[in-house]
Amino acid sequence: MSAVGRALPETIEEGNLVLLYQDPKRKWITTVSKQRFHTHKGFVELETIAGKKFGESVMTSMGQPLAIFKPRTVDIVESFDRPTQILYPKDIGYALYQLGTKSGDKVLEVGTGSGAMTASLASAVQPEGHVYTYENRPEFLEAAQANIEKAGLSSVVTFHNSDPSEGFQEANVEAVIVDLGDPWKMVEASRRALVGGGMLAGFTPTTNQLEKLAESLRSRGFLIIEAVEVLLRQLKTDAGKLRPESRMVGHTAYVTIARKIQQGN
Amino acid sequence: MSAVGRALPETIEEGNLVLLYQDPKRKWITTVSKQRFHTHKGFVELETIAGKKFGESVMTSMGQPLAIFKPRTVDIVESFDRPTQILYPKDIGYALYQLGTKSGDKVLEVGTGSGAMTASLASAVQPEGHVYTYENRPEFLEAAQANIEKAGLSSVVTFHNSDPSEGFQEANVEAVIVDLGDPWKMVEASRRALVGGGMLAGFTPTTNQLEKLAESLRSRGFLIIEAVEVLLRQLKTDAGKLRPESRMVGHTAYVTIARKIQQGN
Amino acid sequence: MSAVGRALPETIEEGNLVLLYQDPKRKWITTVSKQRFHTHKGFVELETIAGKKFGESVMTSMGQPLAIFKPRTVDIVESFDRPTQILYPKDIGYALYQLGTKSGDKVLEVGTGSGAMTASLASAVQPEGHVYTYENRPEFLEAAQANIEKAGLSSVVTFHNSDPSEGFQEANVEAVIVDLGDPWKMVEASRRALVGGGMLAGFTPTTNQLEKLAESLRSRGFLIIEAVEVLLRQLKTDAGKLRPESRMVGHTAYVTIARKIQQGN
Amino acid sequence: MSAVGRALPETIEEGNLVLLYQDPKRKWITTVSKQRFHTHKGFVELETIAGKKFGESVMTSMGQPLAIFKPRTVDIVESFDRPTQILYPKDIGYALYQLGTKSGDKVLEVGTGSGAMTASLASAVQPEGHVYTYENRPEFLEAAQANIEKAGLSSVVTFHNSDPSEGFQEANVEAVIVDLGDPWKMVEASRRALVGGGMLAGFTPTTNQLEKLAESLRSRGFLIIEAVEVLLRQLKTDAGKLRPESRMVGHTAYVTIARKIQQGN
Repeated sequence: MSAVGRALPETIEEGNLVLLYQDPKRKWITTVSKQRFHTHKGFVELETIAGKKFGESVMTSMGQPLAIFKPRTVDIVESFDRPTQILYPKDIGYALYQLGTKSGDKVLEVGTGSGAMTASLASAVQPEGHVYTYENRPEFLEAAQANIEKAGLSSVVTFHNSDPSEGFQEANVEAVIVDLGDPWKMVEASRRALVGGGMLAGFTPTTNQLEKLAESLRSRGFLIIEAVEVLLRQLKTDAGKLRPESRMVGHTAYVTIARKIQQGN
Repeated sequence: MSAVGRALPETIEEGNLVLLYQDPKRKWITTVSKQRFHTHKGFVELETIAGKKFGESVMTSMGQPLAIFKPRTVDIVESFDRPTQILYPKDIGYALYQLGTKSGDKVLEVGTGSGAMTASLASAVQPEGHVYTYENRPEFLEAAQANIEKAGLSSVVTFHNSDPSEGFQEANVEAVIVDLGDPWKMVEASRRALVGGGMLAGFTPTTNQLEKLAESLRSRGFLIIEAVEVLLRQLKTDAGKLRPESRMVGHTAYVTIARKIQQGN
Repeated sequence: MSAVGRALPETIEEGNLVLLYQDPKRKWITTVSKQRFHTHKGFVELETIAGKKFGESVMTSMGQPLAIFKPRTVDIVESFDRPTQILYPKDIGYALYQLGTKSGDKVLEVGTGSGAMTASLASAVQPEGHVYTYENRPEFLEAAQANIEKAGLSSVVTFHNSDPSEGFQEANVEAVIVDLGDPWKMVEASRRALVGGGMLAGFTPTTNQLEKLAESLRSRGFLIIEAVEVLLRQLKTDAGKLRPESRMVGHTAYVTIARKIQQGN
Repeated sequence: MSAVGRALPETIEEGNLVLLYQDPKRKWITTVSKQRFHTHKGFVELETIAGKKFGESVMTSMGQPLAIFKPRTVDIVESFDRPTQILYPKDIGYALYQLGTKSGDKVLEVGTGSGAMTASLASAVQPEGHVYTYENRPEFLEAAQANIEKAGLSSVVTFHNSDPSEGFQEANVEAVIVDLGDPWKMVEASRRALVGGGMLAGFTPTTNQLEKLAESLRSRGFLIIEAVEVLLRQLKTDAGKLRPESRMVGHTAYVTIARKIQQGN
């Protein structure tokens, strides 16, 4: 068997971001360093992780094994400080695929919030693409910047501390993502910033917001590709006892995907 | 306003793949050429599209405007020839985000089918990454190759005409995607092909398949991150008449996301 | 074993309403008579059913067995002539249980439509209770009367051919069921017709209608007990291939259950 | 306006069961008596309720108004002591409507549990029908008996403290309701107890139980009418902020509705 993939699996080094995983409810993102990391089942001297490979385990002082993983974007986002409600992975994943966002794209975000979508967009457009994100509440922007820094994605993100109802500084972007309470106010500015045929995604918790957003999009040169809600049911897969989980998230936000029709611009 | 995005919006040229869009049910992928393109509302001389910009429209001989868009991966996949049932966008988008697949990744697919997931993976890993895909039914492989060629993604995809129950030719890949009727038979080979901590996604229509896959994963060195079903509700956004659509897709497949735990290998 | 239930199972007689059942898609309600009944797999001389017991089968002229069942209300309703869209069993069943409608109740319905809810209410309140139903479109009322007659429930239903926006003729009813396009216009009249603490159920397809109905209920002396949508997933139970059906009904109507608060009246 | 409904709204008397309602989370079932009833917002002298009418309010010692309602079956069931997990109203309501259970029916229940379904069946068949219920765990039976007593339905319920795998004492019942961990073991006994064409409802939390139950029903003379799951989404109806609730019940049980085919018996 020849290793067509990477020549060799990576060895973990000091400074690497790692996910320590005990179970779905107990998992942590941290950096390999000379620190001691505490869990409720004992501690780990983080430097002992250096030299191991991803997928291996480390034992806590109380004998609890923790799997060591390379964090995915979704893991890192889950560990973000959250001064605001963040978008759910189910909605982010859906929107990214519908937007068609890919490596090399230039995309614009309005409503940085805690940076969950920002990080996801940055991961999708790297290494050559870029994310321009706007947030007018300085305390959120600060938290988002720290989160993006932690995710190692700062080089592909530009933060703007402003409310761009007057217009964005960028033009000809492939996509605009709007996650604000009044997304309809950003439709005209989004239209001007988008390249012809460019995509817009809007997230709206209430049906009233969805209605206003759809109305604004239709009247300002967008085709609505779809307005959906994504429901996620988790299953318990115990052998002989397969069943959906007893509780689920009932609603997060409606996701609207629209596409700019060129009309001069 | 400076154009920080692309310097200039692209002008459509002969040879470009375009999406001609009338409405959600009537849209077509074609290539700009000297051909005449027929719709039920008249035809378009495709060469008249050259020189236009994406987002602009072209008029058919019967006066029906068609918007011209740069096709997203999801648009191209929707236009694929399908000798087999294909995965749904809702499931592909979910899996890609959970796998964390990104530019530069090497990923492996078992069960190419019509190439819907193949194209989506290829789009996510390009330009530096690669997709290795296995399919043992030659007629499906042929259709998939034509589809991937149409999508312009052939350079990042390697096709294998074999059933890899004995093992894959690749190693240290970041992710394995399994879309076969008996995915549990691929778990051991997948484990060996994956880098430590690598991700696996499996798609299973029935609860019985899900149960067997989960059992196999647990017994062969995987952590099950989650087993879910993604339900998508589309909404009609007519002003004053907002409501979910009357019909919806009730079920496609359960999506299982698992992660390899290193155990020597 | 002593037969505590009924002394003897009923023998089918001429004049009885029967359900002839081939499979979930092919089933018919008819009356045992001297008629010949045609199916796509041969005919049945209906008088040959007399003397059989429910649950037994009859063979068509082409050898297709049909099970003979005593029709439930839901079977009869499914066979109704439908000049209008009718409520779905999932919504009717939910509302009846939430309303607490039971034998002996007097209930009021606005918007008879094809009589699906009327029949369900009549079945629930019989033999001592009564349903008063209002419909201002004569052609619907006529169809509904024929449907209720077929269901054998005419003795517990009174039909009113009028739009009761001015008020109902009845008072002190236990429940009012509103199934009209503008249910908020019936809230005040409903309040006056209801006994203190009486229940109201409203069915609204759009979120805009739901919002107006809820607003009207709150401002006119009702407590909203709940506003819900009922989603029904059917499963295929083939052994070894258990799975939800591929298609499902995505939306019918929101069901609002409210309760009158006494304020003088 | 003539009072066609009841001659007069009822006046509440000592001994009546009442629902005291503050809001959806704070509501209590109690009996009008000389007792003092305590809430976290002050107390009520219950005898002051006598002489009022349903739908009116009573004020607590701290000035909190409580609406006084005549309890529906669903309210009483919600107040039951529950040594066991009980069926959800969404599932009970669905099953009752599908079973076609109505006044005068004789029905059989296996797995009394806390009596939630028992009470709902009793309410549906009263005053002339009857419910025969089996429970082999004495502590559950005792709780169920007290609950049914509280609901005022004891006269239409017969309790059996036994596991009827050998057979039920009743015959020719219109319906059998099975709510046990291994419902397939009750299929043969249920078939024998049912009248020809009689209905069976089974509740199963896992897909494995559903599969076994369906298999058993098919092999022992039943037609499966349907196997479903009922999903209930609650909505917040605040004006201008309409949206589904953030959390929902993800899964309770699959409901199977089957019908006995006569084969001699």
